[in-house]
Amino acid sequence: MQTKITLPESSIPDHWYNVVADMPNQPLPYIGPEGQPITPDAMQAIFPPSIIEQEMSGERWIEIPEPVREALKLWRPSPLYRAHRLEQAIGTPARIYYKNESVSPAGSHKPNTAVAQAYYNREAGISHLATETGAGQWGCALSLAGQMFGLQVHIYMVKISYDQKPARRSMMQAWGGEVHSSPSNLTECGRKILDKDPNCSGSLGIAISEAVEEAAGKEDTNYALGSVLNHVLLHQTVIGQEAKAQLALVDEYPDVIFAPCGGGSNFGGIAFPFFADKAAGKEVQLVAVEPTSCPTLTKGTYAWDWGDSAGLTPIMKMYTLGHDFVPPGIHAGGLRYHGASALVSQLYHEGLIDAVSIPQTETFEAGLLFARTEGIIPAPESTHALAAMIREAKSCKESGEQKTLLFNLSGHGHFDLSAYDRFISGELRDEEYSSEAIAASLQNLPNVAFEE
Amino acid sequence: MQTKITLPESSIPDHWYNVVADMPNQPLPYIGPEGQPITPDAMQAIFPPSIIEQEMSGERWIEIPEPVREALKLWRPSPLYRAHRLEQAIGTPARIYYKNESVSPAGSHKPNTAVAQAYYNREAGISHLATETGAGQWGCALSLAGQMFGLQVHIYMVKISYDQKPARRSMMQAWGGEVHSSPSNLTECGRKILDKDPNCSGSLGIAISEAVEEAAGKEDTNYALGSVLNHVLLHQTVIGQEAKAQLALVDEYPDVIFAPCGGGSNFGGIAFPFFADKAAGKEVQLVAVEPTSCPTLTKGTYAWDWGDSAGLTPIMKMYTLGHDFVPPGIHAGGLRYHGASALVSQLYHEGLIDAVSIPQTETFEAGLLFARTEGIIPAPESTHALAAMIREAKSCKESGEQKTLLFNLSGHGHFDLSAYDRFISGELRDEEYSSEAIAASLQNLPNVAFEE
Repeated sequence: MQTKITLPESSIPDHWYNVVADMPNQPLPYIGPEGQPITPDAMQAIFPPSIIEQEMSGERWIEIPEPVREALKLWRPSPLYRAHRLEQAIGTPARIYYKNESVSPAGSHKPNTAVAQAYYNREAGISHLATETGAGQWGCALSLAGQMFGLQVHIYMVKISYDQKPARRSMMQAWGGEVHSSPSNLTECGRKILDKDPNCSGSLGIAISEAVEEAAGKEDTNYALGSVLNHVLLHQTVIGQEAKAQLALVDEYPDVIFAPCGGGSNFGGIAFPFFADKAAGKEVQLVAVEPTSCPTLTKGTYAWDWGDSAGLTPIMKMYTLGHDFVPPGIHAGGLRYHGASALVSQLYHEGLIDAVSIPQTETFEAGLLFARTEGIIPAPESTHALAAMIREAKSCKESGEQKTLLFNLSGHGHFDLSAYDRFISGELRDEEYSSEAIAASLQNLPNVAFEE
Repeated sequence: MQTKITLPESSIPDHWYNVVADMPNQPLPYIGPEGQPITPDAMQAIFPPSIIEQEMSGERWIEIPEPVREALKLWRPSPLYRAHRLEQAIGTPARIYYKNESVSPAGSHKPNTAVAQAYYNREAGISHLATETGAGQWGCALSLAGQMFGLQVHIYMVKISYDQKPARRSMMQAWGGEVHSSPSNLTECGRKILDKDPNCSGSLGIAISEAVEEAAGKEDTNYALGSVLNHVLLHQTVIGQEAKAQLALVDEYPDVIFAPCGGGSNFGGIAFPFFADKAAGKEVQLVAVEPTSCPTLTKGTYAWDWGDSAGLTPIMKMYTLGHDFVPPGIHAGGLRYHGASALVSQLYHEGLIDAVSIPQTETFEAGLLFARTEGIIPAPESTHALAAMIREAKSCKESGEQKTLLFNLSGHGHFDLSAYDRFISGELRDEEYSSEAIAASLQNLPNVAFEE
């Protein structure tokens, strides 16, 4: 009985897949502070030329540079698993597969783009990268990548995580990263916030503002983002390409694909290469899964908004809860983001992909079932996709349908065990978002006169 | 440039290799409380028949049951890596390979034997397993295996680790394990120790005594050990067999193999399958690496001694620091054991394998270099093998020798990041053992009249 489908190193994709080429409508531009579409030139303060080109490219295939493929070899191709034990536990006739992205040294899919971004910045003569991190997955990935390509990485880590997750912080430091608690007094926007509230526990939006401010102000420093932007999703498409090749080895093609969706890079990474087939007429359902407490796609508005709190980033047309919205403190820190990738947002708006939201306790119940059947303890972000997939597997049990289901195990939960502890002991609760808070936050969207 | 050498699932070995068949002298028996060799019958109170048979077997190849191979598929075959980046950093002409056992769900090589022991116990109608754990690697592995084969696992966890490593404890609980701080008041020997010293921080020797007492006293409960015994080393030989096959794929054969050595299962696992070649005349050096602070092989005595503190286990002829010896509190908890496998001890005594000891700071320096070149953050146990290997690689640099070096990366350091933190901040010190303590402890060896 085959459990793991592995590929040799030579099967690491040599191109990234750009979903823009197959979208029925071209994506809208990003908008700058004056309300005009942002030009490539305007982005050069914080990004290297190759990244800007990728961000705006309509080419279907973009070649992966050889040094990036070499770096990816440390953990790619990642294995695809058939979840026999989980199927048995559910009693479903569905065939369940999962792509295991937890095998990277940083423990998640994030290094896939981190090594590419580090490479392009080094090629552009940049010596420092500034970034933000919430739960720490992205900060770890970029520290690792910076180390591999000889760049110094500065990480603004959301204060509450900085205090609560010392292991993630140590991990970044082990890879040579320099970690600051955010809001910090190293940036103007950090100081402003601390002036108002010295005990501010921080947010992803604030940390982004700090990192962008540092990058914009220093010649030798660029900014690196771990999700949301087109080039980040592009770099993650190695996941879906490999998964497709692995499924083909066992004569399978998925009926439904599930991935957690915060900024959107994990979802885009596995789903977009299958979207190419869908655009060509093939039937496949692509489901983005988010927390009910931060329901960007399922309860947000499709509108122009900033990617950060301070309004330093470009304005994007996306699903948003408003850039002021502070999501409840669920354990899936990577899904606590007010917005979503413009590409994912547009595809969802056009009805080409699906979205579903899941409450926290259901995700941990799914995570525990997975740990006790498949062995791996999943990250709280991953358990969202898992829980949605289990719903589908149960519905197959009722209907008798033998669907092929695929989900993306975006990372392991080795640094989230206290959350499992709380769930096992019955302390963990579902967190409710406040409709009033979202409504209030949506009052503060920027005015954009751009004609679509 | 090839980095990872992977094997398909079908290449998981179908037999374990028993080194006893190739040892020039047969191993000595275990001795019971009356000074007589222990019979298989006497072991039935705590082990199932198949395990006892394996413990005493002289057969070269022992078949791996199909359900065990199925379980191993969750992470095996583990990848073998060529450490290009590490070689470059050292500037050595040596070719460095490592077997990555950190890919198991529990994060170390320990599940290789845990699934086999759980399987045989279930087959024997046992419903509960009792065991001990120090740093938590073995307790995690057995909890996982118990879950996979439907057994309830009771773990006596050394108190100091129970208090300091809540994540490891949560991991065991996530897999359904029941964890007790040791010494506990659940056993007679635990209560005795607590009576004397209510604040006793515990030791591996004490925890073993507690688990053995529970297993011996309950009909439905057996005992499972994570290292030292012959059958445990046997189950780990999948590592060396796979490594040999993987090296053959790139036309390599190791000149020197390094593995950390506490009880000996990690060393035996990778080294024994190569010992088979050595016994047949091939040249290969096998190096067991231990901490200078717990130098069982390099400073201990080859003598009869108990495996635990309370004297509940059989007496074995082995290298020992005395069963009363409490090693300094180094971070490599898995190497803090007073004794060593009888098989490893005998091979060392006969000059067929080598041993070296390394101070703590050198191991962390090696671990950090590895993290910053190869990406993976190694467990403190693994860094011992790594540090010894780096010494050899540096000596190759001086001599110009192009040796092929192989070391066993026994586990990842995700739960040891505070130790890396201490090393990076300069707080970590080398720990010295006390010669007086060892000398005193060696006064308390049992008297064994058995004629060798």
